[in-house]
Amino acid sequence: MTVLERKPADRLHDNLTQVQRLLERQRLVDELLHRQDEPRQEPADKPQLVESLLHRQNLTELQQKLAQLHPADIAYILEALPLHERLLVWGLVRSEDDGEILLEVSDAVRESLIEAMDSDELVAAVEDLGADELADLAPDLPRQVVYEVMGSLDDEERARLQSALSYREDQVGALMDFELVKIRADVSCEVVLRYLRRFDELPDHTDKIFVIDDDERLKGVLSIRKLLVSDPDAKVGDVMATEVVTFRADEAAEDAALAFERYDLVTAPVVDGNGKLIGRLTVDEMLDVIREESESEVLNMAGLKEEEDLFAPVVDSVKNRWAWLAINLCTAFVASRVIGAFEQSIQQLVALAALMPIVAGIGGNSGNQTITMIVRALAMGQLQLSQAWRLWRKELGVSVINGLVWGGAIGIIAWWLYHSFSLGLVMTAAMTLNLVLAATMGVLIPTLMQKFGRDPALGSSVLITACTDSGGFFIFLGLASLFLL
Amino acid sequence: MTVLERKPADRLHDNLTQVQRLLERQRLVDELLHRQDEPRQEPADKPQLVESLLHRQNLTELQQKLAQLHPADIAYILEALPLHERLLVWGLVRSEDDGEILLEVSDAVRESLIEAMDSDELVAAVEDLGADELADLAPDLPRQVVYEVMGSLDDEERARLQSALSYREDQVGALMDFELVKIRADVSCEVVLRYLRRFDELPDHTDKIFVIDDDERLKGVLSIRKLLVSDPDAKVGDVMATEVVTFRADEAAEDAALAFERYDLVTAPVVDGNGKLIGRLTVDEMLDVIREESESEVLNMAGLKEEEDLFAPVVDSVKNRWAWLAINLCTAFVASRVIGAFEQSIQQLVALAALMPIVAGIGGNSGNQTITMIVRALAMGQLQLSQAWRLWRKELGVSVINGLVWGGAIGIIAWWLYHSFSLGLVMTAAMTLNLVLAATMGVLIPTLMQKFGRDPALGSSVLITACTDSGGFFIFLGLASLFLL
Repeated sequence: MTVLERKPADRLHDNLTQVQRLLERQRLVDELLHRQDEPRQEPADKPQLVESLLHRQNLTELQQKLAQLHPADIAYILEALPLHERLLVWGLVRSEDDGEILLEVSDAVRESLIEAMDSDELVAAVEDLGADELADLAPDLPRQVVYEVMGSLDDEERARLQSALSYREDQVGALMDFELVKIRADVSCEVVLRYLRRFDELPDHTDKIFVIDDDERLKGVLSIRKLLVSDPDAKVGDVMATEVVTFRADEAAEDAALAFERYDLVTAPVVDGNGKLIGRLTVDEMLDVIREESESEVLNMAGLKEEEDLFAPVVDSVKNRWAWLAINLCTAFVASRVIGAFEQSIQQLVALAALMPIVAGIGGNSGNQTITMIVRALAMGQLQLSQAWRLWRKELGVSVINGLVWGGAIGIIAWWLYHSFSLGLVMTAAMTLNLVLAATMGVLIPTLMQKFGRDPALGSSVLITACTDSGGFFIFLGLASLFLL
Repeated sequence: MTVLERKPADRLHDNLTQVQRLLERQRLVDELLHRQDEPRQEPADKPQLVESLLHRQNLTELQQKLAQLHPADIAYILEALPLHERLLVWGLVRSEDDGEILLEVSDAVRESLIEAMDSDELVAAVEDLGADELADLAPDLPRQVVYEVMGSLDDEERARLQSALSYREDQVGALMDFELVKIRADVSCEVVLRYLRRFDELPDHTDKIFVIDDDERLKGVLSIRKLLVSDPDAKVGDVMATEVVTFRADEAAEDAALAFERYDLVTAPVVDGNGKLIGRLTVDEMLDVIREESESEVLNMAGLKEEEDLFAPVVDSVKNRWAWLAINLCTAFVASRVIGAFEQSIQQLVALAALMPIVAGIGGNSGNQTITMIVRALAMGQLQLSQAWRLWRKELGVSVINGLVWGGAIGIIAWWLYHSFSLGLVMTAAMTLNLVLAATMGVLIPTLMQKFGRDPALGSSVLITACTDSGGFFIFLGLASLFLL
């Protein structure tokens, strides 16, 4: 049987391994060719001819292998290869797949591929893409290439491209596509079926047909599943659904993705302010939105500006990590100055120096727990600002319990280590107070950010850690100075 | 026109606000009733009757409002309400929606709802669900309810439920459903269309029909899009696709989700070892997998065990955060002991106490950057272990540059603050060395975890921070003791 039997994940890995084996062989042949080249400087002799032949045979084999693969699989291989080999493979890919592959690879890898192409190649690669796909690539393409491609489009496509480019990347308008099937409400299902048969191919993901009136205003949708089981004589207007989840072009892509999840959608119409149908969203774009959203959340938490090409040159990686390291350095410097203000106390009681990182560290951990929960709830729209107060009380309860339990434990250890009961007591009190501070800031920071229209996720982890570090040092050293010295 | 005009996100929010307003009114009415009840202890007089009527009217209004909503919307409202009000609303939901809503709400909220129901209500709520949906709920249901429901199923459904329950939650077998349309290869498209018309309703998300032979083995798939444009006389065997992405029941759900993303799938067949068709995966389940996967990544990074019900009782929240706080306390204690070993040095030069958290902090930040990137690459299958060495060299380069630049900057500041050139030099050297340690552990930890078959994401952030904290203190205080004292 012809149905593929390997698991997709294994198949993907097999492909990569095969390509890597061919590349390795290529490297060996090239090395041989090279070695013969240099020392003797003779004209091409027989062995060299053999290797040169091997070289070409090998490339052909690689090319054939690549020609069999799905563009998404080639994208995967390109992402997993170091720069030099990536460009070698990229040169061997069938040029008609170039556009698709550019769409599939990660932003960082896309840049490296586009850099390696000249304008003509780029124009050839992208001119057959749809307006929505072109709009995805446009920000990464040289300006001149975009103009050239725009010039070759017909008026309708150009208008679509311009419309798609007029929206931000995180808006529905930038993600919608324009290939959709529209019908009128007054025709019969039979007519619709005959109309559909005249297509060579229906647009990807077509699970519903959009029903419009004379002014192109959306009146409802007819799902294909419904169409297939309906009486052929029934009018579209009678079988279509009129309760339709519709989107506006200026809506946040994230909200659209949540709605796709919530209502299990495959495609959905996008309408303008007058209810006119202007495009549609498909679930594959929404999958990408969800993936990217979660990716940027994780990257932000770890202090990375954007996704990184694994094999990016060192300089690019340094740039990507620069910003957060600098911010971190500033907050660490502030915390260091807080300690500096208590240098006399530390000199008198050096145990403080050893114990203070515990207070700061646990505070940071606990604050991050609170802030993560609240940022998530805000992102999913589950938390109204009016309830922040109630949540704060709850977080306060959690932090007091944790402070007394864990702070108590570490206080007893400090007492035992340094033979000072009052030091243990100060430790427990400082831990509890710092956890209360962590809970308070953990609720306050994201809700204030949300209130002032900022993204609550951005930098929240750095901010809370800054508070709990400086705050923790201040509380612990301050209490110690007051009560122990 | 009847097409919905509000943005889905706004509509969702409107619904919640309306329900909250009704609940608030209810609370006021109840308060009035209650106030009259207590102080006077009179028999029901007229004003009380009015309020009792209001009470019932209000509940009816709430009930009607809820009856109009999609189960997913009700789930959203339940998640956003505090426990007491949540249970009030839950009691008013139409009982035929109960099962759907239980499927939609988050795990934490589901628990609170199930706790509030007795066995009979639970059986009634879930007995109409499909085997795959039952399998999703089963782990949260009382054992007795599961048995009772199982008893009421027919043999085929029971076998399906048992099969679904035999897989882990993160395997394809636990997510696949069994509603699918199967045909033979030797019939014509016309026959298929007539066959489909006999269904009352096609299964959700049906975008393709599965073509099987006499032994139920998968021979190919016929996409509905293809069927609609094909010649009615064409044989299914001639128009079906034979290159099909298929899954096995024991495959990881994560891998399946990646394949859905990569190949833009809506549904895909699941086959057993003999190629027999046993179920199908749908994109809505895959959306949930991607969402949950990213969620658990973020929660893990922040040190939360699982997703938390925002309005969970304090005790539940404490339990959820307990484990990571305890681990964090242990690592902080180790770091504190490292400092303790250098107490004499700190006593001699107290500036060390103020500067040491900077070294540890920047190391932690940089290590988290490295480890996050590598964990992601491993999760996406982009990184082979054989390339870890190459990556390590690159990360080393990044860390040396960052160490010299940022370490240099902070060294100059330390020199200026404490008037000691050699202290600045030690600071720069310690920063650079700690960043090198961070890069090394950032590559080593996840690749070793992967090699030994552990999830590289789990606790990676805690581990790297533990290394860079203790390591940073040791390097800085050690260098200072060697060269400054």
